Amino acid sequence: LAHSPPDHSRLSLNQKTTNNWSVRQAVEGCARAGIPFIGLWRDKVADTGLARSARLVRDAGLRVSSLCRGGMFPAATAAGRRASLDDNRRAVDEAATLGTDVLVLVCGPPLDLNLDAARAMVEEGVHELAPYAAQAGVRLGIEPFHPVLMTERSVIVTLAQALDIAVRFDPSRVGVIVDVYHVWWSPDLYSQIARASGRIFGFHANDWLSPEPDLLLSRGMMGDGPIEIRRIREAVDETGYTGPIEVEIFNQDIWNTPGDDTLALMKERYAACV
Amino acid sequence: LAHSPPDHSRLSLNQKTTNNWSVRQAVEGCARAGIPFIGLWRDKVADTGLARSARLVRDAGLRVSSLCRGGMFPAATAAGRRASLDDNRRAVDEAATLGTDVLVLVCGPPLDLNLDAARAMVEEGVHELAPYAAQAGVRLGIEPFHPVLMTERSVIVTLAQALDIAVRFDPSRVGVIVDVYHVWWSPDLYSQIARASGRIFGFHANDWLSPEPDLLLSRGMMGDGPIEIRRIREAVDETGYTGPIEVEIFNQDIWNTPGDDTLALMKERYAACV
Repeated sequence: LAHSPPDHSRLSLNQKTTNNWSVRQAVEGCARAGIPFIGLWRDKVADTGLARSARLVRDAGLRVSSLCRGGMFPAATAAGRRASLDDNRRAVDEAATLGTDVLVLVCGPPLDLNLDAARAMVEEGVHELAPYAAQAGVRLGIEPFHPVLMTERSVIVTLAQALDIAVRFDPSRVGVIVDVYHVWWSPDLYSQIARASGRIFGFHANDWLSPEPDLLLSRGMMGDGPIEIRRIREAVDETGYTGPIEVEIFNQDIWNTPGDDTLALMKERYAACV
Repeated sequence: LAHSPPDHSRLSLNQKTTNNWSVRQAVEGCARAGIPFIGLWRDKVADTGLARSARLVRDAGLRVSSLCRGGMFPAATAAGRRASLDDNRRAVDEAATLGTDVLVLVCGPPLDLNLDAARAMVEEGVHELAPYAAQAGVRLGIEPFHPVLMTERSVIVTLAQALDIAVRFDPSRVGVIVDVYHVWWSPDLYSQIARASGRIFGFHANDWLSPEPDLLLSRGMMGDGPIEIRRIREAVDETGYTGPIEVEIFNQDIWNTPGDDTLALMKERYAACV
């Protein structure tokens, strides 16, 4: 199983990869390209409408691999943290409506100089959200981010750290998202992937382009950078993960490319590199 | 001791902070500013001449906190690795001539897609260099680099990883350099600093500016970013480290500033933030 050939049965288009496409366009693009999964983003779902997005996906016979994003837990005030929790509950509801059982958590940056406080707020946020998500049948996938994005996106910066939070919960409820861009540099990557066994709720493929002016946009197509994507994918599969493999690429050049071209290249590189 | 007030008795100008200054100019600048230590770079020492640099420093009554840099161990061929070892031995000799017992190791990027091979070459390189350095009375300080610089500078990206190499050697011979820019994001920073007790051969102060176009140049003056520098310095001191505190800032704006102004600001921020 772990070394099964990478046919396209697990391939998912994370819709950030085709950032200029609406939900409808992305759904139709996947249908044309024969891509069975799509990863949705809340802002684009909101643009199209939640019910309409759910219907578009269902009518096209697509499955939703995940919804991005919940998280962003740190807030300066108790009211701010309650607002964050409320928003996360809405994200859980949206995930359920869209027919996916995975909500990706981008945990949030530090508020000021205090990393410890932000990390404690993340732990508390997951703790508060977990029962609600469990009731809705939605799993929470904590996505560790590359340390370079810590002050922009997430104080959770290693797989080990994400797992330290996840292991306090039932493995069927709280787990991790492994995005190769965020974790490939880690000296203990493979031991932490093994440790994540049973808790990997998503796998994101892309590549590392460095140095680039905009760190958020410096992700590349698989094969355009140095990441050992196949090795990481095989290690993830060894843990028993058999779920979708999302291609998620933040990259202005790719966004400027016609979506169908991107999907064609994505399928080719998926077969060659993932 | 650990909480001793940050007077300037441990302050060191890493000469990269005043990149437009020659060794002579940096030495004179430190003398004018009453800064007792200087961290030298081999390229600038070569420009001025090794013997002349040593004499300039000695005549000014300055002490050399470290020499940058050895390392860059990975090479594609056995001949390349021998050349790297030869260059590292010259770096050891230069450190001894300049009157410092600390050679900073920037371990080197991966050659191609294979991180494991590069990391093995780093371990092998330190192993081969250590006896020569011990004979010369020069300690090897492995500097872990921020993961964002892995493909540019170093496959050693965490303090834990640097220590995993260092602990195989006598603690008086191989240790680590703690640069706040490179390690501040780590969830296990303080436990790894504690683990480094007796092996911290240098402490570098600066700050994190993000996002910046050029990652190599995105270091800032202490206090201009989010790093808890004082907390990290106190943790380092708690391990028993009483050595110099180098200010090392790669930043074009700072380089464009008159050196004396930079040193004045550096002293002020050192007192306020380090």
